[in-house]
Amino acid sequence: MADAITPRESDYSQWYLDVIRNAKLAEHSPVRGCMIIRPNGYAIWEYMQSAMDAMFKETGHRNAYFPIFIPQSFLAREAAHVEGFAKECAVVTHSRLKVDDDGELIVDPESQLEENLIVRPTSETIIWDTYSRWIQSWRDLPILINSWNNVVRWEMRTRLFLRTMEFLWQEGHTAHATREEAMEETLKILDIYTTFAEEYMAMPVIQGIKTARERFAGADETYCIEAIMQDGKSLQAGTSHFLGQNFAKAFNCQFQNKDNQLEYVWATSWGVSTRMIGALIMVHSDDKGLVLPPKLADTQVVLVPIYKSDVEKVAVMEAADRIQEELLEAGIRMKVDAREGFRPGWKFAENEVEGTPIRLALGPRDLENGSIELARRDTGEKEFVSQEGLATVVAEKLEAIQNNLFARALAFREEHTTKVDSYDDFKDVLDSKGGFVLAHWDGSAETETKIKDETKATIRCIPLEAIDPNGVDPLTGEASTTRVYFARAY
Amino acid sequence: MADAITPRESDYSQWYLDVIRNAKLAEHSPVRGCMIIRPNGYAIWEYMQSAMDAMFKETGHRNAYFPIFIPQSFLAREAAHVEGFAKECAVVTHSRLKVDDDGELIVDPESQLEENLIVRPTSETIIWDTYSRWIQSWRDLPILINSWNNVVRWEMRTRLFLRTMEFLWQEGHTAHATREEAMEETLKILDIYTTFAEEYMAMPVIQGIKTARERFAGADETYCIEAIMQDGKSLQAGTSHFLGQNFAKAFNCQFQNKDNQLEYVWATSWGVSTRMIGALIMVHSDDKGLVLPPKLADTQVVLVPIYKSDVEKVAVMEAADRIQEELLEAGIRMKVDAREGFRPGWKFAENEVEGTPIRLALGPRDLENGSIELARRDTGEKEFVSQEGLATVVAEKLEAIQNNLFARALAFREEHTTKVDSYDDFKDVLDSKGGFVLAHWDGSAETETKIKDETKATIRCIPLEAIDPNGVDPLTGEASTTRVYFARAY
Repeated sequence: MADAITPRESDYSQWYLDVIRNAKLAEHSPVRGCMIIRPNGYAIWEYMQSAMDAMFKETGHRNAYFPIFIPQSFLAREAAHVEGFAKECAVVTHSRLKVDDDGELIVDPESQLEENLIVRPTSETIIWDTYSRWIQSWRDLPILINSWNNVVRWEMRTRLFLRTMEFLWQEGHTAHATREEAMEETLKILDIYTTFAEEYMAMPVIQGIKTARERFAGADETYCIEAIMQDGKSLQAGTSHFLGQNFAKAFNCQFQNKDNQLEYVWATSWGVSTRMIGALIMVHSDDKGLVLPPKLADTQVVLVPIYKSDVEKVAVMEAADRIQEELLEAGIRMKVDAREGFRPGWKFAENEVEGTPIRLALGPRDLENGSIELARRDTGEKEFVSQEGLATVVAEKLEAIQNNLFARALAFREEHTTKVDSYDDFKDVLDSKGGFVLAHWDGSAETETKIKDETKATIRCIPLEAIDPNGVDPLTGEASTTRVYFARAY
Repeated sequence: MADAITPRESDYSQWYLDVIRNAKLAEHSPVRGCMIIRPNGYAIWEYMQSAMDAMFKETGHRNAYFPIFIPQSFLAREAAHVEGFAKECAVVTHSRLKVDDDGELIVDPESQLEENLIVRPTSETIIWDTYSRWIQSWRDLPILINSWNNVVRWEMRTRLFLRTMEFLWQEGHTAHATREEAMEETLKILDIYTTFAEEYMAMPVIQGIKTARERFAGADETYCIEAIMQDGKSLQAGTSHFLGQNFAKAFNCQFQNKDNQLEYVWATSWGVSTRMIGALIMVHSDDKGLVLPPKLADTQVVLVPIYKSDVEKVAVMEAADRIQEELLEAGIRMKVDAREGFRPGWKFAENEVEGTPIRLALGPRDLENGSIELARRDTGEKEFVSQEGLATVVAEKLEAIQNNLFARALAFREEHTTKVDSYDDFKDVLDSKGGFVLAHWDGSAETETKIKDETKATIRCIPLEAIDPNGVDPLTGEASTTRVYFARAY
């Protein structure tokens, strides 16, 4: 069933692709850079959506939908924004095909559009055009809107989930009467992303601020969460932007404040995408395939029935059905793999490679003993447990798996976070073990660029609270107010 | 707050737009034909998605995602399909913008694509290209996949929700080993759509088969559900297509059957879209605004607190909070409208126009009496009920409202379904009361076209079971095996 999976040690990139293929998560499509998200992969996205959507709604956000197309002129309205996105746009120029005299299907030249439309790379421009009509007074504020949709950025080098031309995401866009309120929103969302990453994905993250170089095109400040993958590279898993009044000014969005004065509206935007699935894979999975945290597993528990004769089958299936009923009742997402024509060992292997957190196996001897075999995907541990009270045991195990995955990833990150005080150490650590290198930085773009050019490491973020203030940049000897997180990154 | 709503009697089209605007459901965007779905409108879509998604999953379907772009050459592979969609395509031809010598943002001519990409109008082609790689043997079948996404069809005349250039929908695409199984799937989905329309939208529908003229481009047979709006026009609310082996042949998708022979795969596809929101509005709403069936209402019950003094406010709000807790506990989606600076009458009006099924009003006198005022949006009835056991009463009322809306719409449809046996009566009924005209038809495309040209009525569907078999076409005198549903339609 499963092809061989390349071990992480020998080729990490190939291992990543092998896991995705064998776990049937996604594949490349005939459209360069666009992926097909297969049911196993999409199910993860659905659990991600459902968890985050609930958190957004609890904090007063509502979902809406804005057009997939952005008029070309809109993109030009915010200078930094167009600079950031113009070079990677899918441009719609015509609205019709026709069959030419040779019987070939061609674009109908007569259908050229008056204004080109850009497939949205992000929706700030069309949303702020809309908000400028919705907002007149302080009474219309705040606006707290999120949208789940698809965006296109014409990336040249793509990699399944991590960097694709089209991806699925949510983009939040909020409008506020004051700078303080907008900043509070920016950080509230950063906390939601952090909670989601740590409690659902079991992926520890660092919160921080991007440098100007890594900032979102059009933002005053970009906040982010960063996580370390098993190859020691960092991955940006979500960003929350404080946009200041940039888009309000570009789209002339003013409101009358309580003192009857006109002011520009303050804005935030924030997003996470299907990229998170890539992070999930790279943080937890192993050389046997996908490892899924129980909270994001469509199938949390699979039961494989084992029998030889028809008589055994009847008895085993009866017990399996009873157990399924008990577990489903306890809110556990549980499946009996009763497929005919597949051997138990084949089913074990399939569930292993697809990351099912717990596998139960039930045979005739278990019926005699009142026992059942329970195998954990995360540790590979197997044990026989009593059928009596199984739902409670399974629920506890699922929680233990969720916690163990987080603890394991946290320990890995701690091992792979290193303070350095010389540029030689900086380079040594990057090459020898990777991970986050916590070093002082003089705050200049030149130093940042020089380090990137020489080491391929970028500043992943400036921590929200200073680490070892009053330091010295190891490269330039200039003063530094905090260590920052450097890493090679996805 | 709300602008005036044009009465249905004086201008039905304007009434429809007024309801949408006042209930804040959607609006036109600066991109011609693309709409902005506002939070109140999107919430309806979310409840629709959640109800249907559960039904799809219960019947073994899983969600997946396919690219937004279709290579132009794919569209050309199935003859009827390209014929149906080539004239209304958003065509992506370039991948980059640049600033020209005059400082203008233009398409970079050097970024022209080798092959044009079409923004998907529907995904049969790219999905069957994919299935041709996924399917080798009967063991790989069936494939039961659904996708929630956005599609673009370059419509010239658009109308919010009913016909927009971009719309949101789900598209199911299934692959089967036999014709029978594919046909069974087609009808199973038709039943799911019917259940959803009737039980959630409270909208009675007719099931039937489209004529060849109205069939989906590429289908062997299109099944549909049709509903009558309050202006007597019919609206196609969902379609389920039996695709035969057309796409399997176009994309060379064969499988080895149990006898080791190669066969083409059998296919279905099916979809419902945000168009359903338009139907929902037109079936139930009235001259005061939106009327929502409780099952699709984000806020099922609003409680408006009424007080004059601060002392009264404290007492009323305390009781309101207690009531809210009770109702939420009973699973009722309930909100206390505690906004300051808005009078109760204003809140009443807002909830009325936005379609909240039940409005409660609670004042100081109610505290003395242990009562609360309950007003139904569907009938306008008001009564005082006891605070004691309120959750039960409210739950019953919500169910009564849901049932009443269905019964009312069903009665309307029955009044507006007329059997006719002469062409004069046919035209009279269409002009005088509209609705479905049940007439015999000789089965020819000529007759169908003639009737459409002369009366603007189309055959909405051929019923699944013959009505009055052995009749005569009133226009041609030819034999007919069943009456069919004619109507003017959206």
